Amino acid sequence: MNWLNIITYCGTFVFAVTGALKARTHKMDVFGAAVLAFSTAYGGGTIRDMLLGIKPVNWMNDYIALGLVISALLITFLLKTNIAKFNRTIFITDAIGLGMFTIAGIKISLNAGIGDVYSVIMGVITATFGGLVTDILCNNIPDLLKNNEFYATACFIGGLIFILLLKLGLNPDICIFCCISLIVGLRILSKLNRIHLPRFK
Amino acid sequence: MNWLNIITYCGTFVFAVTGALKARTHKMDVFGAAVLAFSTAYGGGTIRDMLLGIKPVNWMNDYIALGLVISALLITFLLKTNIAKFNRTIFITDAIGLGMFTIAGIKISLNAGIGDVYSVIMGVITATFGGLVTDILCNNIPDLLKNNEFYATACFIGGLIFILLLKLGLNPDICIFCCISLIVGLRILSKLNRIHLPRFK
Amino acid sequence: MNWLNIITYCGTFVFAVTGALKARTHKMDVFGAAVLAFSTAYGGGTIRDMLLGIKPVNWMNDYIALGLVISALLITFLLKTNIAKFNRTIFITDAIGLGMFTIAGIKISLNAGIGDVYSVIMGVITATFGGLVTDILCNNIPDLLKNNEFYATACFIGGLIFILLLKLGLNPDICIFCCISLIVGLRILSKLNRIHLPRFK
Repeated sequence: MNWLNIITYCGTFVFAVTGALKARTHKMDVFGAAVLAFSTAYGGGTIRDMLLGIKPVNWMNDYIALGLVISALLITFLLKTNIAKFNRTIFITDAIGLGMFTIAGIKISLNAGIGDVYSVIMGVITATFGGLVTDILCNNIPDLLKNNEFYATACFIGGLIFILLLKLGLNPDICIFCCISLIVGLRILSKLNRIHLPRFK
Repeated sequence: MNWLNIITYCGTFVFAVTGALKARTHKMDVFGAAVLAFSTAYGGGTIRDMLLGIKPVNWMNDYIALGLVISALLITFLLKTNIAKFNRTIFITDAIGLGMFTIAGIKISLNAGIGDVYSVIMGVITATFGGLVTDILCNNIPDLLKNNEFYATACFIGGLIFILLLKLGLNPDICIFCCISLIVGLRILSKLNRIHLPRFK
Repeated sequence: MNWLNIITYCGTFVFAVTGALKARTHKMDVFGAAVLAFSTAYGGGTIRDMLLGIKPVNWMNDYIALGLVISALLITFLLKTNIAKFNRTIFITDAIGLGMFTIAGIKISLNAGIGDVYSVIMGVITATFGGLVTDILCNNIPDLLKNNEFYATACFIGGLIFILLLKLGLNPDICIFCCISLIVGLRILSKLNRIHLPRFK
């Protein structure tokens, strides 16, 4: 297990916490929170694997995945203090997680013989569709589709740059670093300045 | 066709009736009722097959499945009397169906090379995610995620015991009997005593 | 590329426009509109491919699909004039698209070794479940399940006739023509006379 794995697990953990917090908002029980934590953390990768026809889906038989979701669940459930304290940490870790998930989605798609543009699309789906599934389970219009800042957009731009740098023959670790920095930067920039894609009037 | 098949078909039929009744609540037409009956009865198995990469999904080319759904549809549509009369029968048959579906899901997953814990999870998904899909189609937060009694929990416990007894080398029929009895018992117990998993406050 | 392809692309384009218009109704941003346009146009085929286990799904690596969705998006976004002007054109093109999608779904399913009745069901899913997915993403009960006119029903009847004529050994182009004419006819008939399937009271 190298440092990249550790970063990815941190991202996954924060995704799972986000899902469990949504269950709290809707006053669900522990099972509901487990489903939402799992769908937020692994929903995007599951959809990607189903679209690509990879079988079984990535988290099957992965007991670290299960452990991460259960820990996220326990912490969210037991934590009495206001989670708002950790908002900034969650925001940054979520942004780094977005980057790791985008890269993982792109790599897996390229390996499956998918072209560049569609691999970036698969990367965006990997990173963002977990939250979309969770919002559907909570009976909300997915935030992702009407968001007020860059989210999928940051993943898409980061993914495009990642694949471009990869084609230029750069060291993969540098490509990963650039992609994640870009996504984190775009997330912060759009958050602070309320930049968003054009919306319908 | 042995007695196990017959029990499974009874469970499937009751699942389909439950789905068609939800269509009635939402004043859907016959096509809507057919979709909900089908998704309630076969949605869980469909998701399991997609996650495992089994192709095509289990109900494809199964004309008994189609027949069960159509009969459930006709009966729900034609039945003028209050369905509440049969509430107890539906409750018990549904619980037995849960057990059969959990077992079927576990067996199929074990055969596909999935580990014990994830096989139990696949069993729970097989038994319960049909109702979840149907609730999403009805634009409700799935009951499954915020339920007031044991439902997925009963399947999980029953599934764990099933796989444990199987490992101990017991006769498969006895394992099946124990698993279903346990699930039915837990369902009745939690219904009568309003036992449920801890919920977020 | 023959005339059949051109007709299919017209249908796909109109499906994508319909999806983007739903995004406009919900005041989503451009990314949301792209997701809805894509899901309306390709959601049905995606579900069919997942159920059949065809990998990867049909639109993967298809840059014409991407182009159609992006053009639909741009046109919907830029069009200032009332879209109601084109209602009749959209209705007819949508009906023709329904027919093409039903036929495509049936053919692909037959090739995958699926029986006649289930192939027709797969055809109906191909044609209609894109709209269903989009309605779920918009947090609405799918129109498809409670519609006030023939929609899935038209596809089902058209699909049955298509497969029947095919069995009779007719020229495939004639079968296609009959199927589409029937679907368009049934759509117009049911629209004008408010014919619909029986509904629950």
